Amino acid sequence: MGIIVQKYGGSSVANSERIKNVARRVVETMNEGHQVVTVVSALGDTTDELIELASQVTDCPPEREMDMLLSTGEQVSIALLAMAIDQMGYPVISLTGPQVGIITTETHNKAKILNVNNKRIKEALDKGKIVIVAGFQGVNENNDITTLGRGGSDTTAVAVAAALKADVCEIYTDVDGVYTADPRMVVDARKLAEVSYDEMLEMASLGAKVLHSRSVEYAKKHDVVMHVRSSFNHHEGTIVKGEAKMEKMIVSGVTCDTHTAKITIKGLPDEPGIAYHVFNDLAKAEVNVDMIVQSAGRNGINDISFTVEEDDFRKGLEMVREIAEKLKAEDIGYNKGVAKVSIVGAGMASNAGVAAKMFEALMEAGINIDMISTSEIKVSCIVEEVDVQRAVEVIHKKFNLGE
Amino acid sequence: MGIIVQKYGGSSVANSERIKNVARRVVETMNEGHQVVTVVSALGDTTDELIELASQVTDCPPEREMDMLLSTGEQVSIALLAMAIDQMGYPVISLTGPQVGIITTETHNKAKILNVNNKRIKEALDKGKIVIVAGFQGVNENNDITTLGRGGSDTTAVAVAAALKADVCEIYTDVDGVYTADPRMVVDARKLAEVSYDEMLEMASLGAKVLHSRSVEYAKKHDVVMHVRSSFNHHEGTIVKGEAKMEKMIVSGVTCDTHTAKITIKGLPDEPGIAYHVFNDLAKAEVNVDMIVQSAGRNGINDISFTVEEDDFRKGLEMVREIAEKLKAEDIGYNKGVAKVSIVGAGMASNAGVAAKMFEALMEAGINIDMISTSEIKVSCIVEEVDVQRAVEVIHKKFNLGE
Repeated sequence: MGIIVQKYGGSSVANSERIKNVARRVVETMNEGHQVVTVVSALGDTTDELIELASQVTDCPPEREMDMLLSTGEQVSIALLAMAIDQMGYPVISLTGPQVGIITTETHNKAKILNVNNKRIKEALDKGKIVIVAGFQGVNENNDITTLGRGGSDTTAVAVAAALKADVCEIYTDVDGVYTADPRMVVDARKLAEVSYDEMLEMASLGAKVLHSRSVEYAKKHDVVMHVRSSFNHHEGTIVKGEAKMEKMIVSGVTCDTHTAKITIKGLPDEPGIAYHVFNDLAKAEVNVDMIVQSAGRNGINDISFTVEEDDFRKGLEMVREIAEKLKAEDIGYNKGVAKVSIVGAGMASNAGVAAKMFEALMEAGINIDMISTSEIKVSCIVEEVDVQRAVEVIHKKFNLGE
Repeated sequence: MGIIVQKYGGSSVANSERIKNVARRVVETMNEGHQVVTVVSALGDTTDELIELASQVTDCPPEREMDMLLSTGEQVSIALLAMAIDQMGYPVISLTGPQVGIITTETHNKAKILNVNNKRIKEALDKGKIVIVAGFQGVNENNDITTLGRGGSDTTAVAVAAALKADVCEIYTDVDGVYTADPRMVVDARKLAEVSYDEMLEMASLGAKVLHSRSVEYAKKHDVVMHVRSSFNHHEGTIVKGEAKMEKMIVSGVTCDTHTAKITIKGLPDEPGIAYHVFNDLAKAEVNVDMIVQSAGRNGINDISFTVEEDDFRKGLEMVREIAEKLKAEDIGYNKGVAKVSIVGAGMASNAGVAAKMFEALMEAGINIDMISTSEIKVSCIVEEVDVQRAVEVIHKKFNLGE
């Protein structure tokens, strides 16, 4: 009898019928002979409603108070799910992040998990109870409630699974698993039975919305097997783990991300330490930089381009204005209308010509490439946002991923 | 510079405008040179909405999970009020009951406060912050969230005031203070400048809805001066403290309570221990019994009548059915259509004929008295609910309370 950690997102608990559905699913898992810990997010639109409430009293809510406010969302979910399971006659207890002892960094709104205390959960499991844990939240060393930011509930689930040495961490979502491309964009996209952490990481960071990369990083670090599956059916989903059977595929998927923006600093002095100054200042402002391209110097000056998530764009641009002035750059430029299209696959590193094949597909479709970035297991290209749908299609076809 | 604890109820923070109004009021108090701790209840109808959510998933929510659910209401309030105060540019921090360290008994839904840790509040006050505390909630020794039941937020405020040795605990409500009778029932009802704890206790337990008796009991025990006043104007309200200036009045007010029901156990054996068995069983079922009348025995059997709050009526009646069977009583009877009308006043004990004067007023109005109960400072009569408005009027007039 092993421990299974399950995570259900906000859409899976959006109303009382869905909460009861999740309750049935949790009870089924228990009846199959497992100890079950279930992590839930806030009900449907709760978080948006709470943000709206805050905006009615202030333009600029303090981050600590925002966490105090938002963390109520998951607290409502865990109580209701526990009630639904109790109604079915099964022993159950709900626990908030602070009650579990999900210890995080001090940073509000995007805290990182430092440690998960497994004592209280284990005690409850040993008493035969189903344990419901609030996702997305924890407590810092000041005893203040923190929230984990994007991908928070997935990360909670993986961290809890790691602390309990669970057999698997099931991530229930509204899709069946991880596909070779977004099925809404590519009709013959195929579900993958297994992917490795690294592939999933690349896919996640490249815009496959199924899993947030934070949770996959945590899973990789603690060797937690994840199972991404649908809460609306019983199909097997996609297993994410260390050594995935690669089905002899070189490229496992095509992903795209339209929530990206490009910023360029033009005419920077070509001297040591410039890149450090630029990206250190951006990091201090908590702007996450994705791709970076530095052009070859000409006449002792350099251009540096990078991409950021749309949400960080405004802050990034402000920061870049300061940096440009400080470093005496000539000018700055930006383009919000870009998108990133990428191929991911563990087989890539040992197969020459994969990148070239991708560029060929784009060339044949007449799509211009603005920036390129590669890693061991992925190749990403920045293209105009209007071209992205076509880019994904032609690349998916080029690599015969639909077969 | 002293510490002032303020408490605002749900109607005072029902929407963003009212929250901002409370924020201004809190800031005013700080600007008058005080350290301020503000206790708030859940926004307007939040509690009812949460109960409705629970009822959608279960007929019978476990009490622990109900507390988990309901405590989110105040958590939302404290976060929003803190945001509104921050927006005005004042340093502020919100704290949940568990964060303060409001330690309660284990009992969910109606926990009692055992101890209030003043450390975290004091630290925040010493840093010059306004402290916002969630009313109605605490934490038991299992680290489970508890709620305090009726009158919970008032009790939180008084307990926090006691722990901080505050100068005064201001209870903001939608009325101006404590009146000689309900101003909606008696046109010439007068606001009292001061009442003693004991008088307030009698009034509270007798149905004056301004303060719940629990908070007054706590205040009396810890000698906390309370100030009942309106959140919608700046009038002085009513001071509740140990030795109130009695304005030489014998009777300070008339109160009534229509949320009461009468239960009778007929034909009980007239032997020692019967009353103990009846009321011990009711106490174990947590049914709060108010007035008790035992008729003189006849032929070795007795009738016992008592009143309970309407909310406890169903549970009380069930319990009484069991008790009646166990003790071989002849029959049971009940009447939900009764009300209690009472006079309260510290001068009563030393003034003969006060009770008689009350009975005279009722007799003159042709109102029948069903049960009578007296104490040092009050006389209560159970009458038919339809007579209660008139009963209050004629008694108020008889004692010239409007002058």
